[in-house]
Amino acid sequence: MSELLSRGVFRLTSCPSIEGAAAIVGAKEGEGPLGALFDQVHEDSYLGQDTWEKAESQLQTQAVQTALKKSGHKPEEIGLLFAGDLLNQCIGSSYGLRELQIPFYGLYGACSTMGEGLGLAALFTDSGLIRRAAAVTSSHFCSAERQFRYPLEYGGVRPPSAQWTVTGAGAVVVGPSGKPPYLKGVATGMIQDLGVTDINNMGAAMAPAAADTIRRYLEATQTQPGDYDRIITGDLGAVGSELLVDLLGREQIDVSAQHDDCGLLIFNREEQDVHAGGSGCGCSASVLCAHILNEIQSGRWNEVLFVPTGALMSTVSVQQGESIPGIAHLVHLSSKRWPQPEQE
Amino acid sequence: MSELLSRGVFRLTSCPSIEGAAAIVGAKEGEGPLGALFDQVHEDSYLGQDTWEKAESQLQTQAVQTALKKSGHKPEEIGLLFAGDLLNQCIGSSYGLRELQIPFYGLYGACSTMGEGLGLAALFTDSGLIRRAAAVTSSHFCSAERQFRYPLEYGGVRPPSAQWTVTGAGAVVVGPSGKPPYLKGVATGMIQDLGVTDINNMGAAMAPAAADTIRRYLEATQTQPGDYDRIITGDLGAVGSELLVDLLGREQIDVSAQHDDCGLLIFNREEQDVHAGGSGCGCSASVLCAHILNEIQSGRWNEVLFVPTGALMSTVSVQQGESIPGIAHLVHLSSKRWPQPEQE
Repeated sequence: MSELLSRGVFRLTSCPSIEGAAAIVGAKEGEGPLGALFDQVHEDSYLGQDTWEKAESQLQTQAVQTALKKSGHKPEEIGLLFAGDLLNQCIGSSYGLRELQIPFYGLYGACSTMGEGLGLAALFTDSGLIRRAAAVTSSHFCSAERQFRYPLEYGGVRPPSAQWTVTGAGAVVVGPSGKPPYLKGVATGMIQDLGVTDINNMGAAMAPAAADTIRRYLEATQTQPGDYDRIITGDLGAVGSELLVDLLGREQIDVSAQHDDCGLLIFNREEQDVHAGGSGCGCSASVLCAHILNEIQSGRWNEVLFVPTGALMSTVSVQQGESIPGIAHLVHLSSKRWPQPEQE
Repeated sequence: MSELLSRGVFRLTSCPSIEGAAAIVGAKEGEGPLGALFDQVHEDSYLGQDTWEKAESQLQTQAVQTALKKSGHKPEEIGLLFAGDLLNQCIGSSYGLRELQIPFYGLYGACSTMGEGLGLAALFTDSGLIRRAAAVTSSHFCSAERQFRYPLEYGGVRPPSAQWTVTGAGAVVVGPSGKPPYLKGVATGMIQDLGVTDINNMGAAMAPAAADTIRRYLEATQTQPGDYDRIITGDLGAVGSELLVDLLGREQIDVSAQHDDCGLLIFNREEQDVHAGGSGCGCSASVLCAHILNEIQSGRWNEVLFVPTGALMSTVSVQQGESIPGIAHLVHLSSKRWPQPEQE
């Protein structure tokens, strides 16, 4: 049964396991530093579909199917499925997952969606409400560019603070297998808005939310950054990552030795022309499923805070002069369970 | 602690209460049959803001503030807030709720959002994860028309099966007050897609999802339609409502005497030129908060199944020739708790 430590912060006493995970990505992600770790790399940006939106749905379908296969479970063994994406009305999820026939909660958390979905899956299984849950999210460079920015044919030039939307999906199956990686804690994000209005600098807009969620989790668990091997945000990129370290530093919380960012891990910024790094729901989701869980499973990392970050604006809100609210949902991953009262 | 009866179907053993609820609507809704029941009716479609999107955010802000006031609780007493809307990237919620500083789970369930949010709030409180939660959603005729259809200035003519997006928001506070209305059960929706492609007939696209969810709840609880005073769907409208009765009839489930639809309740179709009825996230949310909860509190209705329905398409998916997937989330409301093992 999950224990509420402070507002929105839960200790997962049973430590549910990630029983299976999969990351399906595009060609550019396959050429990056994590290329060899993904379950599948698609050279064709259409994945054999006739539109990029349908291709993005396919990414979700394949990610869930692969995660299920790796977990050894069938769709009918999944009690609840949590999913969302960045496309208008979250069509990546609705169309990608409609065939599965799993009870479905649609989410909107922008690029924080994997943190939100994994957190909810963890809380539902840890509290005993259901035995097994799944979470999935995706993004696609081409569908995101034409929805949020310009048609690709336009060839717009990006400022250095801009980030590159990852083509990829990540899916996890959460359940009671009793094997690592384990889920030990969840911190639900609160919307933070410090007034950033630059749509080409979303890392800066999201950093305050990441700082708030990390600080709240450390306080509630009475831990320090040094208690973790890594504290990995979603897609703050180069600009937002610096800002995060700075913001937490002002509160005497030094995460500089532990902090990394999925947006910085997925691409080689020197060689891949991605400016400030990767972004999109698929960024943190695919880095989690291909890289972070591997490091924990292998025992190279023991305690990791995974903190996907989302910018909750739209093209309309930005055109109307609104600032960009951010949110960050945290999940505490580990190679070990909490010390259990009854040892199994 | 919630008890899992079948996939996605939960019995809420503690029967959390709706401690406060509020509905804030626009002028047309105020002129409808439920006009006198809303907490506030805005004659100005801008609510004093400079855009309709900001007006929609205001609807959410006011709905939550009013529901909190009526519940006697402050924002800091709310453990989790579940919210979403139909605007691209759910900006109605992000901007309308950012000041509240409540741990926030963003949802996307299209017009089923109040069913999804209320269901999650019920499960989180019933299972003891948190003490008190809130859920809110909204829609706005003017922001929806220009996003999904045409600029209002264009004056497009609608076919008879088209529905009218409600301008309104509904918010609920769920907690352990021990007073009616009570929450007794939840059925999580599964995505259903029978291949309807007519964007002007979304009731037909959503009816199969409503039928599926209602059937699953009745089966899991071993109850009949006659055990309920009302079975009220979200916004199937005239066309979808007929279809729902027909679909369930084919499975020997006759809901004709109990079924009603928020989209039919909120407007006077003879006089208000709304064609097949009301729609939008704000439709079922405002009818719940202004009307359904009142009827239960007054004891006129004892057992009610509230089943908001959502169409999970986007303008892009429809342009790309996709059919329209639907989803329906069910919440069982009651004037009485389940018989309790220890009587209080």
